[in-house]
Amino acid sequence: MNSFELYNPVRVFFGEGQVAHIDEQIPKDARVLLTYGGGSIHRTGVYDAVRHALGARYVVDFGGIEPNPHYETLIKALPIIASEGINFILAVGGGSVIDGTKFIAAAAQFSGVDKWMLLQNPKLADTFVAMPFGTVLTLAATGSEMNNGAVITRAETQEKFAFHSTTTFPRFSIVDPTYTLSLPLRQVANGVVDAFVHVIEQYLTYPVNAYVQDRFAEGLLQTLVEIGPALLQTPNDMVLRSNLSMSAMLALNGWIATGVPEDWATHLIGHELTALFHLDHGLTLAIVLPHLLRDQFQYKKAKLVQCGERVFGICGGTEDERASRTIDAIEQFFLTMYEGKIRLTDYGIAHEQLTEIWERFAARRWKLGENRTIDAAAVQRILLAAL
Amino acid sequence: MNSFELYNPVRVFFGEGQVAHIDEQIPKDARVLLTYGGGSIHRTGVYDAVRHALGARYVVDFGGIEPNPHYETLIKALPIIASEGINFILAVGGGSVIDGTKFIAAAAQFSGVDKWMLLQNPKLADTFVAMPFGTVLTLAATGSEMNNGAVITRAETQEKFAFHSTTTFPRFSIVDPTYTLSLPLRQVANGVVDAFVHVIEQYLTYPVNAYVQDRFAEGLLQTLVEIGPALLQTPNDMVLRSNLSMSAMLALNGWIATGVPEDWATHLIGHELTALFHLDHGLTLAIVLPHLLRDQFQYKKAKLVQCGERVFGICGGTEDERASRTIDAIEQFFLTMYEGKIRLTDYGIAHEQLTEIWERFAARRWKLGENRTIDAAAVQRILLAAL
Repeated sequence: MNSFELYNPVRVFFGEGQVAHIDEQIPKDARVLLTYGGGSIHRTGVYDAVRHALGARYVVDFGGIEPNPHYETLIKALPIIASEGINFILAVGGGSVIDGTKFIAAAAQFSGVDKWMLLQNPKLADTFVAMPFGTVLTLAATGSEMNNGAVITRAETQEKFAFHSTTTFPRFSIVDPTYTLSLPLRQVANGVVDAFVHVIEQYLTYPVNAYVQDRFAEGLLQTLVEIGPALLQTPNDMVLRSNLSMSAMLALNGWIATGVPEDWATHLIGHELTALFHLDHGLTLAIVLPHLLRDQFQYKKAKLVQCGERVFGICGGTEDERASRTIDAIEQFFLTMYEGKIRLTDYGIAHEQLTEIWERFAARRWKLGENRTIDAAAVQRILLAAL
Repeated sequence: MNSFELYNPVRVFFGEGQVAHIDEQIPKDARVLLTYGGGSIHRTGVYDAVRHALGARYVVDFGGIEPNPHYETLIKALPIIASEGINFILAVGGGSVIDGTKFIAAAAQFSGVDKWMLLQNPKLADTFVAMPFGTVLTLAATGSEMNNGAVITRAETQEKFAFHSTTTFPRFSIVDPTYTLSLPLRQVANGVVDAFVHVIEQYLTYPVNAYVQDRFAEGLLQTLVEIGPALLQTPNDMVLRSNLSMSAMLALNGWIATGVPEDWATHLIGHELTALFHLDHGLTLAIVLPHLLRDQFQYKKAKLVQCGERVFGICGGTEDERASRTIDAIEQFFLTMYEGKIRLTDYGIAHEQLTEIWERFAARRWKLGENRTIDAAAVQRILLAAL
């Protein structure tokens, strides 16, 4: 096991009706910016529940944060924060709204004129304290409600950048699984797959004798494999919804990342597919991961065998056979979640459209993955296999 | 799954050499009370490493905190804190030193004259902010390094009381598994069993469809069953030691308690055995748990079957048979850890000495366990079975 630092100060209120805790968690005299997305929270009643919990506090709405939140949208919040004297932000939505809010919370306190600097030089955000914010989660997927990270898109250049700071943890998060009931099945599938691949990125690398972290990661994978297909059959089952909310939150809150190597290449390749072709984030992961695992087979074989045995019950045969069957099982799980469509051609994407991606990786000289073995050539191999 | 609040702000530095982080975590101008136990940290070099990391800070020693820390000992720190202008405490030791330090940190800021009030009325400690403190762990067992709880003994009356407050989380904890290498095997066994039973208290109750929490608890149990006997064979194996440090910390830091019922009757009965007969805490749990499980069989059967299958690989036979074999497997694990001696008579304790325990439970009118079915009569049945 590697050395590690573990710190996660997010206060989580989990369960039905927990929204009422907002009143005790935000100062009575706070001036609140309420951030949200396309407005579905008005239809579902979540907006009203949140406003009720906020009581007499001064509140300014900032809706319209899109999926894969745009830098160009988010910076529009800054003059409002300044002119309205906002000192607390409450994000109501899924990972995109929460990610966008983290950036707003930091940018509002960043003295630099060009807020884009925060995304180009991630260490800048650790030089000051972000504005405090809380979250009310309406979509179980990214785990953003219990971490300090965000992914921001620059629409102008079709690029996605990761962002985090030591002070962009939510002060609190309300995780009420009943709020996720209105989601379309496609969003549920995206959430299951996003959480699943978050775990894989922190688990399916090489063994470092981190017994507990491995067991926790496998427990999350087992749970997601169990509840994912079941949710497609009975989407209103609250047991399944609650366990998805729990799994997604714990898949990326730092716990299973302690003391182990991490990969994240699937995410970085997937981000390009979303930025260029507007594919759902979860779907891009399902498209990329099986081919990345086959491409990096030799490095990941030991963990593939362990994952196969413990998560999918794959025993018997040589190590190579078991590792290979594990990748097939993961692919089959994704096929179930996306109605059999996890190839780029299923979404009308052709070979010649992909060239820009590996050219970007080549220009950035990125070498990704836990072994730094995924360069532009590997990205090209993986994406061509995914066509 | 039940609703829950999750909050754990402890910053953990895990791994060899992490003690150096003390210098960045304690204010440069702090006046530090260094709390420790019987002085083994002088022999092992941990004391010197800590003093080195503290640099030029003003430090006052407060050693001599005994196992099952005594109220009578701990309150002797208070006049020192006052006269020396102490404003930060650093606990160096195992669960007893850390537990005792939590009480000192609270008592030092409690305006009441009678500090014993804090143990009699646990809510009192939430009315003020305890003195900040950090910990350097030298014994993996109680998990006190990553929670806000403590157990304090009043020597005068031979009673043990639990204590916690919202502000008695360590500010940071240094968990360097190499510091545990000097421990005698008996302490290693106690640590493994203490951590194992911590998990059981939060897991082996009745099912509430908390899929992830169950998997995490089972992952900890699997790890402890794997590393416990192995540590007795190769006690200096750093992989095993590291995984014990990790398991013990996560067994009682709040994570697996989220959204599930809890028992804790084994601990409360065990506390009496320690208070009256000075048996090691871990040993008392090994003595009590198998008989408590047999006594409460009907209530715990469903979880016993699940535990048997997932942790011990027990399949086949009726549910009753599998549940019963699970208890036998747990008992066998304890027998291995304590060289076959987990009966009260192995430690010279006779029937007539036990009477006081169930009389205490009767006087307190306690009904323990997740179903409140463990009353004084049940305690009597369990202890007589453990003779």
